[in-house]
Amino acid sequence: MRSGKTLVLGGARSGKSGFAETLLLRDAAGTTSVYIATAEARDDEMRARIAQHRIRRDGQGWRTLEAPLDLPGALAGLAPGAPVLIDCLTLWLTNVMLAQRDVDAACTALRVAIAAHDGPLVAVANEVGLGIVPENALARRFRDAAGRLNQDLAKEVGRVVFVAAGLPLVLKGAL
Amino acid sequence: MRSGKTLVLGGARSGKSGFAETLLLRDAAGTTSVYIATAEARDDEMRARIAQHRIRRDGQGWRTLEAPLDLPGALAGLAPGAPVLIDCLTLWLTNVMLAQRDVDAACTALRVAIAAHDGPLVAVANEVGLGIVPENALARRFRDAAGRLNQDLAKEVGRVVFVAAGLPLVLKGAL
Amino acid sequence: MRSGKTLVLGGARSGKSGFAETLLLRDAAGTTSVYIATAEARDDEMRARIAQHRIRRDGQGWRTLEAPLDLPGALAGLAPGAPVLIDCLTLWLTNVMLAQRDVDAACTALRVAIAAHDGPLVAVANEVGLGIVPENALARRFRDAAGRLNQDLAKEVGRVVFVAAGLPLVLKGAL
Repeated sequence: MRSGKTLVLGGARSGKSGFAETLLLRDAAGTTSVYIATAEARDDEMRARIAQHRIRRDGQGWRTLEAPLDLPGALAGLAPGAPVLIDCLTLWLTNVMLAQRDVDAACTALRVAIAAHDGPLVAVANEVGLGIVPENALARRFRDAAGRLNQDLAKEVGRVVFVAAGLPLVLKGAL
Repeated sequence: MRSGKTLVLGGARSGKSGFAETLLLRDAAGTTSVYIATAEARDDEMRARIAQHRIRRDGQGWRTLEAPLDLPGALAGLAPGAPVLIDCLTLWLTNVMLAQRDVDAACTALRVAIAAHDGPLVAVANEVGLGIVPENALARRFRDAAGRLNQDLAKEVGRVVFVAAGLPLVLKGAL
Repeated sequence: MRSGKTLVLGGARSGKSGFAETLLLRDAAGTTSVYIATAEARDDEMRARIAQHRIRRDGQGWRTLEAPLDLPGALAGLAPGAPVLIDCLTLWLTNVMLAQRDVDAACTALRVAIAAHDGPLVAVANEVGLGIVPENALARRFRDAAGRLNQDLAKEVGRVVFVAAGLPLVLKGAL
Protein backbone atom coordinates (compact mmCIF):
# COMPACT_ATOMS: atom_id res chain seq x y z
CA MET A 1 0.00 0.00 0.00
CA ARG A 2 2.28 2.76 -1.30
CA SER A 3 -0.10 5.61 -0.50
CA GLY A 4 -0.01 4.64 3.18
CA LYS A 5 3.67 5.56 3.52
CA THR A 6 4.97 9.07 4.02
CA LEU A 7 8.40 10.70 4.20
CA VAL A 8 8.45 13.94 6.22
CA LEU A 9 11.48 16.13 5.51
CA GLY A 10 12.50 19.28 7.33
CA GLY A 11 15.24 21.19 9.08
CA ALA A 12 16.14 21.29 12.76
CA ARG A 13 13.23 22.60 14.88
CA SER A 14 11.03 22.80 11.80
CA GLY A 15 8.10 21.10 13.53
CA LYS A 16 8.57 17.96 11.39
CA SER A 17 8.20 15.53 14.34
CA GLY A 18 4.98 17.11 15.59
CA PHE A 19 3.60 17.20 12.06
CA ALA A 20 4.56 13.54 11.48
CA GLU A 21 2.87 12.43 14.70
CA THR A 22 -0.37 14.22 13.82
CA LEU A 23 -0.30 12.68 10.35
CA LEU A 24 0.25 9.14 11.62
CA LEU A 25 -2.45 9.44 14.29
CA ARG A 26 -4.86 10.47 11.51
CA ASP A 27 -3.78 7.57 9.27
CA ALA A 28 -3.88 5.16 12.25
CA ALA A 29 -7.53 6.01 12.92
CA GLY A 30 -7.49 5.01 16.57
CA THR A 31 -5.21 1.94 16.42
CA THR A 32 -2.33 2.00 18.94
CA SER A 33 0.72 3.32 17.11
CA VAL A 34 4.35 2.32 17.39
CA TYR A 35 6.92 5.05 17.80
CA ILE A 36 10.41 3.93 16.78
CA ALA A 37 12.96 6.26 18.34
CA THR A 38 16.43 6.15 16.78
CA ALA A 39 18.07 8.72 19.08
CA GLU A 40 20.82 7.64 21.43
CA ALA A 41 21.30 9.82 24.49
CA ARG A 42 25.05 10.51 24.32
CA ASP A 43 24.96 13.60 26.53
CA ASP A 44 22.61 15.77 28.61
CA GLU A 45 21.60 17.89 25.62
CA MET A 46 20.38 14.77 23.80
CA ARG A 47 18.72 13.36 26.91
CA ALA A 48 16.73 16.59 27.34
CA ARG A 49 15.69 16.56 23.69
CA ILE A 50 14.55 12.92 23.86
CA ALA A 51 12.60 13.62 27.08
CA GLN A 52 10.91 16.61 25.44
CA HIS A 53 9.76 14.45 22.50
CA ARG A 54 8.38 11.81 24.94
CA ILE A 55 6.45 14.46 26.91
CA ARG A 56 4.66 15.48 23.71
CA ARG A 57 3.56 11.87 23.05
CA ASP A 58 2.77 10.99 26.69
CA GLY A 59 -0.65 9.50 27.32
CA GLN A 60 -1.55 9.55 23.63
CA GLY A 61 -1.58 5.77 23.18
CA TRP A 62 1.86 5.31 21.67
CA ARG A 63 4.11 2.32 22.28
CA THR A 64 7.78 3.28 22.04
CA LEU A 65 10.58 1.10 20.63
CA GLU A 66 14.22 2.17 20.65
CA ALA A 67 16.20 1.22 17.58
CA PRO A 68 19.36 3.29 17.28
CA LEU A 69 21.00 0.77 14.92
CA ASP A 70 18.73 -2.17 14.01
CA LEU A 71 15.90 -0.15 12.54
CA PRO A 72 15.26 -2.70 9.74
CA GLY A 73 14.93 -5.45 12.39
CA ALA A 74 12.55 -3.35 14.49
CA LEU A 75 10.33 -2.76 11.46
CA ALA A 76 10.37 -6.45 10.52
CA GLY A 77 9.23 -7.39 14.04
CA LEU A 78 6.05 -5.27 13.97
CA ALA A 79 2.60 -6.83 13.91
CA PRO A 80 0.98 -6.75 10.44
CA GLY A 81 -0.98 -3.53 9.95
CA ALA A 82 0.62 -1.69 12.89
CA PRO A 83 0.82 2.07 12.32
CA VAL A 84 4.44 3.15 12.79
CA LEU A 85 6.35 6.40 13.07
CA ILE A 86 10.14 6.44 12.63
CA ASP A 87 11.84 9.48 14.20
CA CYS A 88 14.25 9.90 12.66
CA LEU A 89 16.13 8.38 9.75
CA THR A 90 18.92 10.93 9.87
CA LEU A 91 19.83 10.13 13.48
CA TRP A 92 19.76 6.43 12.58
CA LEU A 93 22.15 7.13 9.70
CA THR A 94 24.43 9.04 12.09
CA ASN A 95 24.46 6.01 14.40
CA VAL A 96 25.22 3.65 11.49
CA MET A 97 28.16 5.82 10.39
CA LEU A 98 29.52 6.28 13.93
CA ALA A 99 29.34 2.49 14.46
CA GLN A 100 31.33 2.11 11.21
CA ARG A 101 28.69 -0.16 9.67
CA ASP A 102 28.34 -0.53 5.89
CA VAL A 103 26.15 2.47 5.01
CA ASP A 104 24.97 1.17 1.62
CA ALA A 105 23.99 -2.23 3.03
CA ALA A 106 22.18 -0.63 5.97
CA CYS A 107 20.24 1.75 3.70
CA THR A 108 19.27 -1.08 1.37
CA ALA A 109 18.02 -3.17 4.34
CA LEU A 110 16.02 -0.16 5.54
CA ARG A 111 14.38 0.38 2.14
CA VAL A 112 13.43 -3.30 1.97
CA ALA A 113 11.97 -3.23 5.51
CA ILE A 114 9.96 -0.06 4.80
CA ALA A 115 8.63 -1.53 1.55
CA ALA A 116 7.66 -4.77 3.34
CA HIS A 117 5.71 -3.13 6.17
CA ASP A 118 2.01 -3.37 5.38
CA GLY A 119 0.56 -0.72 7.71
CA PRO A 120 0.56 3.09 7.75
CA LEU A 121 4.11 4.39 8.12
CA VAL A 122 5.52 7.88 8.55
CA ALA A 123 9.30 8.36 8.47
CA VAL A 124 10.91 11.63 9.55
CA ALA A 125 14.21 12.77 8.03
CA ASN A 126 16.36 15.88 8.18
CA GLU A 127 17.24 17.89 5.13
CA VAL A 128 20.89 18.80 5.83
CA GLY A 129 22.22 19.86 2.44
CA LEU A 130 21.09 23.48 2.20
CA GLY A 131 23.98 25.16 3.99
CA ILE A 132 27.56 25.89 3.03
CA VAL A 133 29.75 22.83 2.16
CA PRO A 134 31.11 21.55 5.50
CA GLU A 135 34.90 21.79 5.97
CA ASN A 136 34.91 18.39 7.67
CA ALA A 137 35.16 15.38 5.29
CA LEU A 138 33.04 13.12 7.54
CA ALA A 139 30.28 15.75 7.59
CA ARG A 140 30.40 15.87 3.76
CA ARG A 141 30.11 12.07 3.53
CA PHE A 142 27.22 12.14 6.00
CA ARG A 143 25.49 14.90 4.04
CA ASP A 144 25.83 12.89 0.83
CA ALA A 145 24.53 9.69 2.44
CA ALA A 146 21.58 11.49 4.06
CA GLY A 147 20.62 13.12 0.75
CA ARG A 148 20.83 9.81 -1.13
CA LEU A 149 18.72 8.05 1.50
CA ASN A 150 16.06 10.78 1.25
CA GLN A 151 16.00 10.47 -2.55
CA ASP A 152 15.75 6.66 -2.42
CA LEU A 153 12.94 6.65 0.14
CA ALA A 154 11.07 9.40 -1.72
CA LYS A 155 10.77 6.94 -4.65
CA GLU A 156 9.53 4.19 -2.32
CA VAL A 157 6.69 6.05 -0.60
CA GLY A 158 3.45 7.53 -1.90
CA ARG A 159 3.68 10.82 -0.06
CA VAL A 160 6.56 13.22 0.60
CA VAL A 161 6.10 16.40 2.63
CA PHE A 162 8.57 19.19 3.38
CA VAL A 163 7.88 20.96 6.69
CA ALA A 164 8.96 24.52 7.54
CA ALA A 165 7.79 26.45 10.62
CA GLY A 166 5.41 23.54 11.33
CA LEU A 167 3.66 23.94 7.97
CA PRO A 168 3.64 21.35 5.14
CA LEU A 169 4.62 21.71 1.50
CA VAL A 170 3.57 18.60 -0.42
CA LEU A 171 6.29 17.30 -2.76
CA LYS A 172 4.54 14.06 -3.77
CA GLY A 173 1.04 12.64 -3.27
CA ALA A 174 -1.60 14.54 -1.31
CA LEU A 175 -2.35 15.21 2.36
CA MET B 1 -7.00 40.88 11.90
CA ARG B 2 -5.02 37.63 11.51
CA SER B 3 -4.98 37.70 7.73
CA GLY B 4 -3.17 41.04 7.84
CA LYS B 5 -0.05 39.52 9.37
CA THR B 6 2.63 37.70 7.43
CA LEU B 7 5.77 35.75 8.29
CA VAL B 8 8.36 35.70 5.50
CA LEU B 9 10.95 32.92 5.86
CA GLY B 10 14.04 32.40 3.77
CA GLY B 11 17.76 31.82 3.70
CA ALA B 12 20.59 34.31 3.50
CA ARG B 13 20.40 36.39 0.29
CA SER B 14 17.16 34.69 -0.67
CA GLY B 15 15.44 37.96 -1.53
CA LYS B 16 13.19 37.69 1.54
CA SER B 17 13.65 41.35 2.61
CA GLY B 18 12.85 42.72 -0.84
CA PHE B 19 9.84 40.43 -1.11
CA ALA B 20 8.61 41.44 2.37
CA GLU B 21 8.90 45.15 1.55
CA THR B 22 6.90 44.76 -1.67
CA LEU B 23 4.25 42.78 0.20
CA LEU B 24 3.90 45.36 2.99
CA LEU B 25 3.74 48.28 0.56
CA ARG B 26 0.88 46.48 -1.19
CA ASP B 27 -0.94 45.79 2.11
CA ALA B 28 -0.25 49.35 3.32
CA ALA B 29 -2.01 50.78 0.26
CA GLY B 30 -0.26 54.15 0.34
CA THR B 31 -0.05 54.73 4.13
CA THR B 32 3.45 55.60 5.41
CA SER B 33 5.03 52.37 6.65
CA VAL B 34 7.27 51.77 9.63
CA TYR B 35 10.43 49.78 9.08
CA ILE B 36 11.76 48.25 12.30
CA ALA B 37 15.42 47.37 11.85
CA THR B 38 16.85 44.92 14.37
CA ALA B 39 20.40 44.84 13.00
CA GLU B 40 23.24 46.22 15.08
CA ALA B 41 26.29 47.33 13.15
CA ARG B 42 29.05 45.50 15.00
CA ASP B 43 31.60 45.70 12.18
CA ASP B 44 32.13 47.11 8.69
CA GLU B 45 30.53 44.08 7.02
CA MET B 46 27.30 44.67 8.97
CA ARG B 47 27.44 48.43 8.40
CA ALA B 48 27.68 47.87 4.65
CA ARG B 49 24.78 45.42 4.70
CA ILE B 50 22.56 47.80 6.70
CA ALA B 51 23.42 50.68 4.36
CA GLN B 52 22.54 48.50 1.36
CA HIS B 53 19.10 47.73 2.82
CA ARG B 54 18.51 51.46 3.49
CA ILE B 55 19.44 52.37 -0.08
CA ARG B 56 16.73 50.01 -1.35
CA ARG B 57 14.06 51.70 0.81
CA ASP B 58 15.32 55.26 0.22
CA GLY B 59 12.71 57.77 -0.87
CA GLN B 60 9.91 55.23 -0.73
CA GLY B 61 8.04 56.76 2.21
CA TRP B 62 9.34 54.55 5.00
CA ARG B 63 9.99 55.68 8.55
CA THR B 64 12.78 53.67 10.17
CA LEU B 65 12.96 52.63 13.83
CA GLU B 66 15.93 50.78 15.28
CA ALA B 67 15.08 48.11 17.84
CA PRO B 68 17.96 45.67 18.28
CA LEU B 69 16.62 44.46 21.65
CA ASP B 70 13.31 46.07 22.64
CA LEU B 71 11.34 44.94 19.62
CA PRO B 72 8.16 44.26 21.69
CA GLY B 73 8.34 47.83 23.05
CA ALA B 74 8.84 49.30 19.58
CA LEU B 75 5.75 47.45 18.33
CA ALA B 76 3.67 48.54 21.34
CA GLY B 77 4.58 52.18 20.68
CA LEU B 78 3.25 52.26 17.10
CA ALA B 79 0.17 54.26 16.15
CA PRO B 80 -2.96 52.09 15.73
CA GLY B 81 -3.25 50.80 12.18
CA ALA B 82 0.36 51.60 11.21
CA PRO B 83 1.73 49.21 8.57
CA VAL B 84 4.96 47.72 9.92
CA LEU B 85 7.82 45.61 8.59
CA ILE B 86 10.18 43.85 11.02
CA ASP B 87 13.55 42.94 9.48
CA CYS B 88 14.47 40.62 10.94
CA LEU B 89 13.40 38.40 13.83
CA THR B 90 16.46 36.20 13.62
CA LEU B 91 18.90 39.08 14.10
CA TRP B 92 16.77 40.25 17.03
CA LEU B 93 16.99 36.76 18.54
CA THR B 94 20.77 36.85 18.06
CA ASN B 95 20.91 40.18 19.93
CA VAL B 96 18.72 38.79 22.75
CA MET B 97 21.01 35.76 23.15
CA LEU B 98 24.22 37.80 22.98
CA ALA B 99 22.83 40.18 25.63
CA GLN B 100 22.11 37.09 27.78
CA ARG B 101 18.44 37.98 28.16
CA ASP B 102 15.80 35.33 28.92
CA VAL B 103 15.02 33.95 25.45
CA ASP B 104 11.66 32.38 26.33
CA ALA B 105 10.40 35.53 28.05
CA ALA B 106 11.56 37.71 25.15
CA CYS B 107 9.88 35.45 22.56
CA THR B 108 6.63 35.42 24.53
CA ALA B 109 6.67 39.23 24.78
CA LEU B 110 7.26 39.41 21.03
CA ARG B 111 4.34 37.09 20.24
CA VAL B 112 2.05 39.14 22.48
CA ALA B 113 3.16 42.41 20.84
CA ILE B 114 2.69 41.02 17.33
CA ALA B 115 -0.77 39.69 18.23
CA ALA B 116 -1.73 43.07 19.73
CA HIS B 117 -0.71 45.19 16.73
CA ASP B 118 -3.83 46.04 14.75
CA GLY B 119 -2.36 47.09 11.40
CA PRO B 120 -0.73 45.22 8.50
CA LEU B 121 2.49 43.56 9.66
CA VAL B 122 5.18 41.63 7.81
CA ALA B 123 7.93 39.93 9.83
CA VAL B 124 11.05 38.57 8.14
CA ALA B 125 12.91 35.57 9.62
CA ASN B 126 15.77 33.35 8.59
CA GLU B 127 15.41 29.62 8.19
CA VAL B 128 18.72 28.38 9.64
CA GLY B 129 18.09 24.69 10.33
CA LEU B 130 18.69 23.12 6.92
CA GLY B 131 22.44 22.59 7.09
CA ILE B 132 24.64 20.15 8.98
CA VAL B 133 24.32 20.19 12.83
CA PRO B 134 26.72 22.94 14.02
CA GLU B 135 29.68 21.77 16.11
CA ASN B 136 29.27 24.81 18.38
CA ALA B 137 26.75 24.35 21.25
CA LEU B 138 25.71 28.02 21.21
CA ALA B 139 24.95 27.76 17.49
CA ARG B 140 22.80 24.68 18.18
CA ARG B 141 20.87 26.51 20.93
CA PHE B 142 20.39 29.48 18.61
CA ARG B 143 19.19 27.19 15.82
CA ASP B 144 16.67 25.57 18.16
CA ALA B 145 15.39 28.91 19.47
CA ALA B 146 15.09 30.36 15.95
CA GLY B 147 13.15 27.31 14.76
CA ARG B 148 10.79 27.42 17.72
CA LEU B 149 10.16 31.15 17.24
CA ASN B 150 9.33 30.57 13.57
CA GLN B 151 6.89 27.77 14.48
CA ASP B 152 5.20 29.85 17.19
CA LEU B 153 4.78 32.91 14.96
CA ALA B 154 3.55 30.76 12.07
CA LYS B 155 0.59 29.82 14.30
CA GLU B 156 -0.04 33.48 15.18
CA VAL B 157 -0.20 34.92 11.67
CA GLY B 158 -2.57 34.37 8.78
CA ARG B 159 0.05 34.09 6.07
CA VAL B 160 3.44 32.35 5.91
CA VAL B 161 5.66 32.53 2.83
CA PHE B 162 8.98 30.81 2.13
CA VAL B 163 11.19 32.77 -0.29
CA ALA B 164 13.94 31.26 -2.46
CA ALA B 165 15.75 33.15 -5.23
CA GLY B 166 13.32 36.03 -4.64
CA LEU B 167 10.30 33.84 -5.40
CA PRO B 168 7.52 32.93 -2.93
CA LEU B 169 6.17 29.53 -1.91
CA VAL B 170 3.02 29.97 0.16
CA LEU B 171 2.97 27.77 3.28
CA LYS B 172 -0.19 29.26 4.84
CA GLY B 173 -2.92 31.63 3.64
CA ALA B 174 -2.78 33.20 0.17
CA LEU B 175 -0.83 36.02 -1.50
CA MET C 1 12.44 32.44 -25.70
CA ARG C 2 12.20 32.99 -21.90
CA SER C 3 10.04 29.94 -21.24
CA GLY C 4 12.78 27.70 -22.63
CA LYS C 5 15.17 28.53 -19.79
CA THR C 6 15.09 26.94 -16.37
CA LEU C 7 16.93 27.44 -13.09
CA VAL C 8 17.03 24.31 -10.91
CA LEU C 9 17.86 25.02 -7.26
CA GLY C 10 18.51 22.50 -4.53
CA GLY C 11 20.78 21.35 -1.74
CA ALA C 12 23.66 18.89 -1.82
CA ARG C 13 22.48 15.41 -2.91
CA SER C 14 18.98 16.72 -3.48
CA GLY C 15 18.68 15.04 -6.87
CA LYS C 16 18.84 18.41 -8.64
CA SER C 17 21.34 17.25 -11.32
CA GLY C 18 19.31 14.17 -12.22
CA PHE C 19 16.13 16.22 -12.33
CA ALA C 20 17.78 18.87 -14.51
CA GLU C 21 19.06 16.28 -16.98
CA THR C 22 15.62 14.70 -17.33
CA LEU C 23 14.06 18.14 -17.86
CA LEU C 24 16.57 19.18 -20.53
CA LEU C 25 16.26 15.86 -22.39
CA ARG C 26 12.50 16.44 -22.50
CA ASP C 27 12.91 20.04 -23.72
CA ALA C 28 15.59 18.98 -26.20
CA ALA C 29 13.20 16.50 -27.83
CA GLY C 30 15.87 14.26 -29.30
CA THR C 31 18.49 16.85 -30.30
CA THR C 32 22.03 16.13 -29.02
CA SER C 33 22.48 18.13 -25.83
CA VAL C 34 25.52 19.93 -24.52
CA TYR C 35 26.52 19.32 -20.93
CA ILE C 36 28.70 22.12 -19.54
CA ALA C 37 30.56 20.85 -16.49
CA THR C 38 32.00 23.52 -14.23
CA ALA C 39 33.60 21.19 -11.68
CA GLU C 40 37.37 21.10 -11.33
CA ALA C 41 38.80 17.90 -9.91
CA ARG C 42 41.00 19.26 -7.13
CA ASP C 43 41.18 16.00 -5.17
CA ASP C 44 40.06 12.36 -5.24
CA GLU C 45 36.70 13.13 -3.65
CA MET C 46 35.89 15.58 -6.47
CA ARG C 47 37.22 13.21 -9.14
CA ALA C 48 34.92 10.45 -7.85
CA ARG C 49 31.95 12.79 -7.82
CA ILE C 50 32.62 14.00 -11.37
CA ALA C 51 33.03 10.40 -12.57
CA GLN C 52 29.73 9.45 -10.95
CA HIS C 53 27.92 12.26 -12.78
CA ARG C 54 29.48 11.14 -16.11
CA ILE C 55 28.40 7.54 -15.56
CA ARG C 56 24.79 8.69 -15.22
CA ARG C 57 24.97 10.54 -18.57
CA ASP C 58 26.99 7.87 -20.37
CA GLY C 59 25.61 6.72 -23.71
CA GLN C 60 22.68 9.11 -23.56
CA GLY C 61 23.79 11.34 -26.42
CA TRP C 62 25.37 14.14 -24.47
CA ARG C 63 28.41 16.14 -25.59
CA THR C 64 30.44 17.36 -22.61
CA LEU C 65 32.28 20.69 -22.39
CA GLU C 66 34.38 21.66 -19.40
CA ALA C 67 34.19 25.32 -18.39
CA PRO C 68 35.39 25.83 -14.83
CA LEU C 69 35.97 29.56 -15.38
CA ASP C 70 34.94 30.74 -18.86
CA LEU C 71 31.32 29.67 -18.69
CA PRO C 72 30.09 32.81 -20.52
CA GLY C 73 32.54 32.03 -23.35
CA ALA C 74 31.44 28.39 -23.52
CA LEU C 75 27.79 29.47 -23.83
CA ALA C 76 28.63 32.05 -26.51
CA GLY C 77 30.39 29.38 -28.57
CA LEU C 78 27.38 27.03 -28.80
CA ALA C 79 25.55 26.42 -32.06
CA PRO C 80 22.23 28.32 -32.30
CA GLY C 81 19.38 26.27 -30.83
CA ALA C 82 21.63 23.80 -29.02
CA PRO C 83 20.02 22.42 -25.84
CA VAL C 84 22.39 23.03 -22.94
CA LEU C 85 22.68 21.99 -19.32
CA ILE C 86 25.00 23.90 -16.97
CA ASP C 87 26.00 21.90 -13.88
CA CYS C 88 26.53 23.87 -11.83
CA LEU C 89 26.56 27.64 -11.36
CA THR C 90 27.62 27.45 -7.72
CA LEU C 91 30.79 25.49 -8.48
CA TRP C 92 31.55 27.98 -11.26
CA LEU C 93 31.12 30.84 -8.75
CA THR C 94 33.48 29.02 -6.36
CA ASN C 95 36.07 28.78 -9.14
CA VAL C 96 35.65 32.49 -10.00
CA MET C 97 36.19 33.48 -6.35
CA LEU C 98 39.16 31.14 -5.85
CA ALA C 99 40.78 32.53 -9.01
CA GLN C 100 40.25 36.03 -7.53
CA ARG C 101 38.33 37.23 -10.58
CA ASP C 102 35.84 40.11 -10.37
CA VAL C 103 32.68 38.37 -9.17
CA ASP C 104 30.22 41.10 -10.23
CA ALA C 105 31.71 41.31 -13.74
CA ALA C 106 31.70 37.53 -14.10
CA CYS C 107 28.07 37.24 -12.97
CA THR C 108 27.00 40.02 -15.35
CA ALA C 109 28.79 38.28 -18.24
CA LEU C 110 27.04 35.04 -17.31
CA ARG C 111 23.60 36.65 -17.24
CA VAL C 112 24.20 38.23 -20.65
CA ALA C 113 25.39 34.90 -22.10
CA ILE C 114 22.39 33.01 -20.70
CA ALA C 115 19.98 35.65 -22.02
CA ALA C 116 21.64 35.51 -25.46
CA HIS C 117 21.47 31.72 -25.87
CA ASP C 118 18.51 30.90 -28.10
CA GLY C 119 17.97 27.19 -27.32
CA PRO C 120 16.60 25.26 -24.34
CA LEU C 121 18.78 25.81 -21.30
CA VAL C 122 18.73 24.33 -17.82
CA ALA C 123 21.09 25.75 -15.18
CA VAL C 124 21.66 23.95 -11.88
CA ALA C 125 22.55 25.91 -8.74
CA ASN C 126 22.96 25.16 -5.05
CA GLU C 127 20.91 26.85 -2.40
CA VAL C 128 23.52 27.39 0.34
CA GLY C 129 21.92 30.00 2.60
CA LEU C 130 19.66 27.88 4.81
CA GLY C 131 22.12 26.91 7.51
CA ILE C 132 23.75 28.79 10.37
CA VAL C 133 25.81 31.89 9.43
CA PRO C 134 29.31 30.56 8.61
CA GLU C 135 32.11 31.71 10.95
CA ASN C 136 34.45 32.09 7.99
CA ALA C 137 34.24 35.51 6.24
CA LEU C 138 35.03 34.03 2.79
CA ALA C 139 32.19 31.53 3.22
CA ARG C 140 29.83 34.41 4.08
CA ARG C 141 30.91 36.36 0.98
CA PHE C 142 30.45 33.24 -1.13
CA ARG C 143 27.00 32.63 0.36
CA ASP C 144 25.97 36.20 -0.41
CA ALA C 145 27.28 36.04 -3.97
CA ALA C 146 25.59 32.67 -4.61
CA GLY C 147 22.26 33.97 -3.29
CA ARG C 148 22.45 37.13 -5.41
CA LEU C 149 23.30 35.12 -8.54
CA ASN C 150 20.31 32.84 -7.94
CA GLN C 151 18.00 35.84 -7.50
CA ASP C 152 19.33 37.55 -10.64
CA LEU C 153 19.01 34.43 -12.79
CA ALA C 154 15.54 33.69 -11.40
CA LYS C 155 14.42 37.00 -12.97
CA GLU C 156 16.05 36.09 -16.29
CA VAL C 157 14.49 32.68 -16.84
CA GLY C 158 10.89 31.56 -17.35
CA ARG C 159 10.98 28.61 -15.00
CA VAL C 160 12.48 28.12 -11.54
CA VAL C 161 12.26 24.80 -9.70
CA PHE C 162 13.40 23.88 -6.20
CA VAL C 163 14.32 20.19 -5.84
CA ALA C 164 14.28 18.22 -2.56
CA ALA C 165 14.67 14.44 -2.34
CA GLY C 166 14.56 14.35 -6.15
CA LEU C 167 11.11 15.97 -6.25
CA PRO C 168 10.30 19.38 -7.75
CA LEU C 169 8.55 22.39 -6.21
CA VAL C 170 7.80 24.95 -8.92
CA LEU C 171 8.69 28.51 -7.87
CA LYS C 172 8.06 30.16 -11.27
CA GLY C 173 6.47 29.03 -14.54
CA ALA C 174 5.18 25.48 -14.99
CA LEU C 175 6.70 22.07 -15.61
